[in-house]
Amino acid sequence: MALIVQKYGGSSVADAEKIKNVAHRIIATKEKGNQVVVVASAMGKTTDELISLARQVTEQPDERELDVLLSTGEAVSSTLLAMALKSLGHDAISLSGAQAGIRTDAAYSRARILTVEAHRIVKELGEGKIVIVAGFQGITQDMDITTLGRGGSDTTAVATAASLGAEICEIYTDVEGVYTADPHLIPQARKLKELSYEEMLELAAYGAKVLHPRSVELGELFNIPILVASSFTESPGTLIHGGIPMEVHSKVRGIAHDLDVAKITVLGVPDQPGIATAIFEPLAKENISIDTIVQNASVERITDLTFTVAKSDLDKAMRVVEPVTKSIGARGCIADAKLGKISIIGTGMQNTPGYAARMFSALYEQGINIELITTSEIRITCIIDQSRVEDALIALHKAFELEKGDGI
Amino acid sequence: MALIVQKYGGSSVADAEKIKNVAHRIIATKEKGNQVVVVASAMGKTTDELISLARQVTEQPDERELDVLLSTGEAVSSTLLAMALKSLGHDAISLSGAQAGIRTDAAYSRARILTVEAHRIVKELGEGKIVIVAGFQGITQDMDITTLGRGGSDTTAVATAASLGAEICEIYTDVEGVYTADPHLIPQARKLKELSYEEMLELAAYGAKVLHPRSVELGELFNIPILVASSFTESPGTLIHGGIPMEVHSKVRGIAHDLDVAKITVLGVPDQPGIATAIFEPLAKENISIDTIVQNASVERITDLTFTVAKSDLDKAMRVVEPVTKSIGARGCIADAKLGKISIIGTGMQNTPGYAARMFSALYEQGINIELITTSEIRITCIIDQSRVEDALIALHKAFELEKGDGI
Repeated sequence: MALIVQKYGGSSVADAEKIKNVAHRIIATKEKGNQVVVVASAMGKTTDELISLARQVTEQPDERELDVLLSTGEAVSSTLLAMALKSLGHDAISLSGAQAGIRTDAAYSRARILTVEAHRIVKELGEGKIVIVAGFQGITQDMDITTLGRGGSDTTAVATAASLGAEICEIYTDVEGVYTADPHLIPQARKLKELSYEEMLELAAYGAKVLHPRSVELGELFNIPILVASSFTESPGTLIHGGIPMEVHSKVRGIAHDLDVAKITVLGVPDQPGIATAIFEPLAKENISIDTIVQNASVERITDLTFTVAKSDLDKAMRVVEPVTKSIGARGCIADAKLGKISIIGTGMQNTPGYAARMFSALYEQGINIELITTSEIRITCIIDQSRVEDALIALHKAFELEKGDGI
Repeated sequence: MALIVQKYGGSSVADAEKIKNVAHRIIATKEKGNQVVVVASAMGKTTDELISLARQVTEQPDERELDVLLSTGEAVSSTLLAMALKSLGHDAISLSGAQAGIRTDAAYSRARILTVEAHRIVKELGEGKIVIVAGFQGITQDMDITTLGRGGSDTTAVATAASLGAEICEIYTDVEGVYTADPHLIPQARKLKELSYEEMLELAAYGAKVLHPRSVELGELFNIPILVASSFTESPGTLIHGGIPMEVHSKVRGIAHDLDVAKITVLGVPDQPGIATAIFEPLAKENISIDTIVQNASVERITDLTFTVAKSDLDKAMRVVEPVTKSIGARGCIADAKLGKISIIGTGMQNTPGYAARMFSALYEQGINIELITTSEIRITCIIDQSRVEDALIALHKAFELEKGDGI
């Protein structure tokens, strides 16, 4: 008897019919002799609608109150799912994040899970029940409700799987798995059978929206295999796990892109110790994620410092950076919100020469200007003009022959 | 500095604009130097919509899950209200029933409040905050969410007021107070300035929908004055309290009516001890409220037993009573769902002769047949055909000259 955690996304539980469909899938898993814990997202566009309702009341909703408001979305979907299961003759119970023991810090709207105190889940499983956990939410030490921000329900699912020692965490969504590139843009994109955590992490971090990097990180940390598959088909999906032999695919595995990139450049920064801290510490305090950071070579002890943030964080980031700019004696700061990011990802890329050159030349052939470059061991990323991202995607998918599958 | 509990009904918080309006009213109370605890109902028709959603998933939603589902309605409205208050510069916090310490039994969908452990409310008030409590919900010893059933938010408000020793519990709704009869049906109906708890209790129990009897009972028990007023006007409303001199109004104060009446008659019941218990104990176990009970005089140790229930409970009640009918050797049972109830209410009625006679003759003049009669010290109720309730209401309002006010 295996313990399986399944997560169903918003589009999979968007209405009563879809909820019933999901209930049948859960039952099929249970009837194979498994224990099943399900993590439910809010129905369809519920979260957006609740945010819009809050905005009708006030332009800047209080963060604590907003989290309580948003948490109701998952309460609705998880209770409906439990009702559907019970009406089909299977004992089930829905648990709020608090009841499921999802303990978080108090960073409203982007809380981090500290621990999953899973005794209630274990007790209900022990009574033969299917346990539905409301995703995306947790509770602080002071018993205040938090939400986990983007990718929250995926994170709930993997954290719960880790805490229970589940055999696998299955993420069901409206796509059939992880592709070599966004199949909406690249019809030739190929579904991948498996990926390593690192590859998925880079793909997710660099724009593949199918899984949030937080959940992949957790999966890697606790070695929980993650299956990404569709809740609408029986297609096998993509398995993300740690057991992939290093040398099997030392090549480009996929291309990620992201249109949500904004760049801030602090001009004329004095090149002296402590400057980076002065700029990035206040940004961290405001919970703004910094992506790429590039500092040009210093000319006469003066340099320009450029970094990218999510477009949605740009205004907030500028409000933080502008006063700092003055205090450190920099010349000023400028923002550019019309950028995109394109990344090629594959294990072993750094040990195999020529990838970077092929990438740059493919972009050059399309007349695409590269604004910034960053790399990791298994990734090369170029920041380019937002309007050229799709062209770049097509060119790179072709250049690395990703449409040609080899069964992995 | 007084402590005031205010409850706002669903129509008072039906949309963002109305929520902002309510926020201004709360602030006005706070700025007079009061501490304010607010109990919020779900927005508009939210509860009905959630029930309908559950019914789309399954015809018989699991009760525990349904309660979690319904509790989200008040979570939404109370967080929005807290956001509105904060955006207007007043510190506020919303608390779920659980956080507010509303402890109940585990009778899902009609839970009873056992106690209000108000330390969190007290702490937040102590920090100068306006505290918004989600109405209609509580939590069991096992930390499962319950809802309180009909009149739930009124009950939350009065129970909270009692627990905090509040000066007054103000119930804001879409009517301006308690009237001598339903003003939608009787344009001459007059708003009452004040009422005793007993009078309000009888009015509420016998069909005046403005307040649920549960909340009035609690108000009486803990001697909390209850003001019923409109959230849309500055009209003074009706004050329900215990300080009304007995002799001031020994007359009919109001007429209540109720269209939600069903009658069950158990035929040919053997007239022997234990029969009533055999019938009513299983009904009580199913949490079905019995209203009027009439047992006819026994003929040859056989009698008919008639009782009324809410129409919504009729099917459930019949399922309970039918097997009992057989087991006690009765002849059978029949149901009638098309009944209504009309009641005249006023303190001192029993000490003043002629009220019953005037009531029966007014109904007789309209050709209205009386099916059952019950009385209390301050009430006379007739069960009549549902289709004649409005005629009866008009006739009785006129017969007792209720349109003629005397300033109370």
